[in-house]
Amino acid sequence: MGAGARTGPPDDDGPPPRVVALGGGHGLSASLQALRRVTTDLTAVVTVADDGGSSGRLRRELGVLPPGDLRMALAALCGDDEWGHTWSEVVQHRFRSEGELHGHAVGNLLIVALWELLGDSVAGLDWVGQLLGAHGRVLPMSSVPLDIAAEVEGADPARPGEVVTVRGQVACASTGGRVRSISLLPEAPPASPQAVKAVHEADWVVFGPGSWFTSVLPHLLVPDLARALVDTEARRVVALNLSPQRGETDGFRPETYLEVLEEHAPELGVDVVLADRSVVQDAGPLREAAARLGGELVLGDVAFGDGTPRHDPDRLAAVFDRVFRGADQ
Amino acid sequence: MGAGARTGPPDDDGPPPRVVALGGGHGLSASLQALRRVTTDLTAVVTVADDGGSSGRLRRELGVLPPGDLRMALAALCGDDEWGHTWSEVVQHRFRSEGELHGHAVGNLLIVALWELLGDSVAGLDWVGQLLGAHGRVLPMSSVPLDIAAEVEGADPARPGEVVTVRGQVACASTGGRVRSISLLPEAPPASPQAVKAVHEADWVVFGPGSWFTSVLPHLLVPDLARALVDTEARRVVALNLSPQRGETDGFRPETYLEVLEEHAPELGVDVVLADRSVVQDAGPLREAAARLGGELVLGDVAFGDGTPRHDPDRLAAVFDRVFRGADQ
Repeated sequence: MGAGARTGPPDDDGPPPRVVALGGGHGLSASLQALRRVTTDLTAVVTVADDGGSSGRLRRELGVLPPGDLRMALAALCGDDEWGHTWSEVVQHRFRSEGELHGHAVGNLLIVALWELLGDSVAGLDWVGQLLGAHGRVLPMSSVPLDIAAEVEGADPARPGEVVTVRGQVACASTGGRVRSISLLPEAPPASPQAVKAVHEADWVVFGPGSWFTSVLPHLLVPDLARALVDTEARRVVALNLSPQRGETDGFRPETYLEVLEEHAPELGVDVVLADRSVVQDAGPLREAAARLGGELVLGDVAFGDGTPRHDPDRLAAVFDRVFRGADQ
Repeated sequence: MGAGARTGPPDDDGPPPRVVALGGGHGLSASLQALRRVTTDLTAVVTVADDGGSSGRLRRELGVLPPGDLRMALAALCGDDEWGHTWSEVVQHRFRSEGELHGHAVGNLLIVALWELLGDSVAGLDWVGQLLGAHGRVLPMSSVPLDIAAEVEGADPARPGEVVTVRGQVACASTGGRVRSISLLPEAPPASPQAVKAVHEADWVVFGPGSWFTSVLPHLLVPDLARALVDTEARRVVALNLSPQRGETDGFRPETYLEVLEEHAPELGVDVVLADRSVVQDAGPLREAAARLGGELVLGDVAFGDGTPRHDPDRLAAVFDRVFRGADQ
């Protein structure tokens, strides 16, 4: 979780850009590890619909928000010193046993304890952020635990044309069919007021990378947050994934990500679509899809380049920096 | 866990006394809350034989030292500011549910995670101490989990004279018979080297208050630690309990505590025996028992005085301060 050198000191030319990153899981972790190199004013707004693993067990046992994606975002922002690194390793540590603690991440337990003690999900996350010396703030997109429901086509191989509703993040992310759209349960959940405020005050809002249906799009289905994302004067960047995700986005072309984004948030304008050069064979259709949303396409080398579909924080940071500075001129 | 004002700044007249407090559980917590008011150079050496509750489950599931008594000692030393108080409340927080986490103390899980991550029990405790801004250091008496075995007379009411061996801290502490003596399993466990060093370098070593057989005496059965406690040039204080403990010390007179101490460590000298005035009806036998160990009796008002058998940290601190200063003259 090292931060490395900043690509450019943000105080070279005025205050740092105020950046809000939306997502969850490993995708958000990747964008945060890049964005922390580019700005000191960074807020993550995180999905709270996970129902699997340690998070799923905690929400079922204790009735709390699923903490796992929030924990990962905090760890991605941990301080650069021994203190920050050690506590980041502690919160990311998972128990392994034959018993009841097996699989629980320590940071999940710590976050939940703070929630129970303070009765305030944002305050609890701020305390863990302070513990880690976090370079930014981590907020839940909603103050209530959510479930994702997906309209899935061909979930049953015997009935390829049939569309069924699949419920739960794990089930949606691993479906054998093709996800057409998602919705949230409960419908129209309350947005975190701090997240709405951060979006309104931002200079840049970053969507993705990440599991498209289960980590990136859910934010657009929380009404007050979606309204803020449409209304904000911030510019909007969509950072595309490096590879389709088995189940969720099997067979997606780069422009498909933008098409489903538009279907879920028809009013949302996009200023920049950021894609890795290696995954765009023909830039034409993607450039056209970006233009339909009002944005331009920026191609860069943002993967590690070792054949694995993982973002290189330094390379991704360099492209974010170029985008943020370019638009400032 | 407030610290309150110090009874006297330890730097009034030279360096603060180097104090080592031995024990476990609520008794050690009480002595630490008093001693932190009297010195800034404080080390707790804690029993690691608990087999009940959250600690017992963790040692069985993960093969670690039972962390509970260590956690309580750390919490008793937490920093005086909002940071120290909040993290102390977090580590002391227990999950309540119908599920697998029920009863686990968060600090136990945090300590165990640090042990798994760092592979070093003392380093892990030092990290939690740093987190809490602890006013002192907390060490395990041994680096391996221990079990207590007790010779108990009359455990079965039908056979009042029979002596049986009872195994396990919970079983020993709650026996219906009379505990005659205890031993450790494994026999002759390794002492924590840091604990041995602290005892050698101390000005004062404090035994008790606390569960006499299961928290105070076990230290004397760890050979290298017992040797250090006998050999050290530190002066030794025995702080007696405010009331007999059901099971363990039912029917004990004040001098009985000293008698069983002597039986378990015949070579140990004692300099001061500290007792609450209210529990000593006739000081004669206790003064004689103290004198047999080479010590003097100090009576004080160290209980809250509300009828409950709890030490008042301020009052206990005042008496420790008087003892430490008196002997320094």
